[in-house]
Amino acid sequence: MSNTIALYPLSNFTFRQDRFTKEAQPEEDPSVSARLQRLQNNYEDFGMRRTVEGILVVHDHGHPHILMLQIANAFFKLPGDYLKPGEDEIEGLKRRLDERLAPPPGIQFDQLPTSSTHHEHNNNSNDWEIGDCLAQWWRPNFETFMYPFIPAHITKPKECKKLFVVQMPERKVLAVPKNMKLLAIPLFELYDNAARYGPQLSAIPHLLSRYNFIYQ
Amino acid sequence: MSNTIALYPLSNFTFRQDRFTKEAQPEEDPSVSARLQRLQNNYEDFGMRRTVEGILVVHDHGHPHILMLQIANAFFKLPGDYLKPGEDEIEGLKRRLDERLAPPPGIQFDQLPTSSTHHEHNNNSNDWEIGDCLAQWWRPNFETFMYPFIPAHITKPKECKKLFVVQMPERKVLAVPKNMKLLAIPLFELYDNAARYGPQLSAIPHLLSRYNFIYQ
Repeated sequence: MSNTIALYPLSNFTFRQDRFTKEAQPEEDPSVSARLQRLQNNYEDFGMRRTVEGILVVHDHGHPHILMLQIANAFFKLPGDYLKPGEDEIEGLKRRLDERLAPPPGIQFDQLPTSSTHHEHNNNSNDWEIGDCLAQWWRPNFETFMYPFIPAHITKPKECKKLFVVQMPERKVLAVPKNMKLLAIPLFELYDNAARYGPQLSAIPHLLSRYNFIYQ
Repeated sequence: MSNTIALYPLSNFTFRQDRFTKEAQPEEDPSVSARLQRLQNNYEDFGMRRTVEGILVVHDHGHPHILMLQIANAFFKLPGDYLKPGEDEIEGLKRRLDERLAPPPGIQFDQLPTSSTHHEHNNNSNDWEIGDCLAQWWRPNFETFMYPFIPAHITKPKECKKLFVVQMPERKVLAVPKNMKLLAIPLFELYDNAARYGPQLSAIPHLLSRYNFIYQ
């Protein structure tokens, strides 16, 4: 496990939300209770849900920023989602990152305002460089609460969410679903701010603190 | 970097505070302002202070607990302290852990109520197994605030504190300074409890969440 991460400037990354953009990606469930009910239904069929999310880090003026999706001008989330039953977690995270953020496959690179040397970063799927698993969050019951440990007396958690750091390439075009925004949130904004970002996102500065960042 | 940590039961560890105990280890500085003043004086002579602390994890009934020192029935801290100028951080952490928690060298193992096969764990110094660095905390100014990142525009932090996970042996005798208590605090007590434990200790559940614990 490396202790350093190279960070590239936010300005090297293009967030597209125009004719190249993917369609909207609405929530699969119409409500929290519907989501928990589906979790329960799936649990009966497939066991514990496994979810993977990516911590994509860039820098702006020498301070680390995390790329986060904002939905409906309200809540924030990391790119990623649950895995298929039996799916490898690294391959599944790459698939989920592509789903959320990769430009649609039909887009030609010459339509994109980047140099041809970076073509491979624009269109190929699965070119995500997945790094260390930095955290696991456990859902003990079919309820909204999750914890960064398995609570005592819980033998069958209902969901495990793993957060992986993603080493961003030097530059990349990201396509954002129509109903979302992709924002770069500085660590100092997340830190000690569970009120706004919730316990999972506000803990990201802690999880990253072990790394020495190299600002490119 | 391994993703698993073997945890041994709290009952395998003996906390001694009797005739084998070390003397009291009072704070080096009589007040917070004196401590910050000494930090400033030392900064002028030696540069940034480097501090190392150990996260010693055991389990009780299958839930992870962190060994913490409590001073004067009030505040909690991890074992560890600042390094000498130029001192290696791993060697320095071992020295600091010995200072705080190792039985004094004169103690014969047959005075200790453990089997002779564990003699080497009782008396030898430097038998600590230091694991991964899990967090870094930075002090930007000669003030009490620390952050898990270097704040923007800070080019010369005044202190960097690194937290290392320590792989505990199967059993061990720990000698506790007379003015301190050694307590095993469960993760669920630390979690979301900055009000009681402060930002550094309450973040430990996040830092450890990436590991899968093997309960021995």
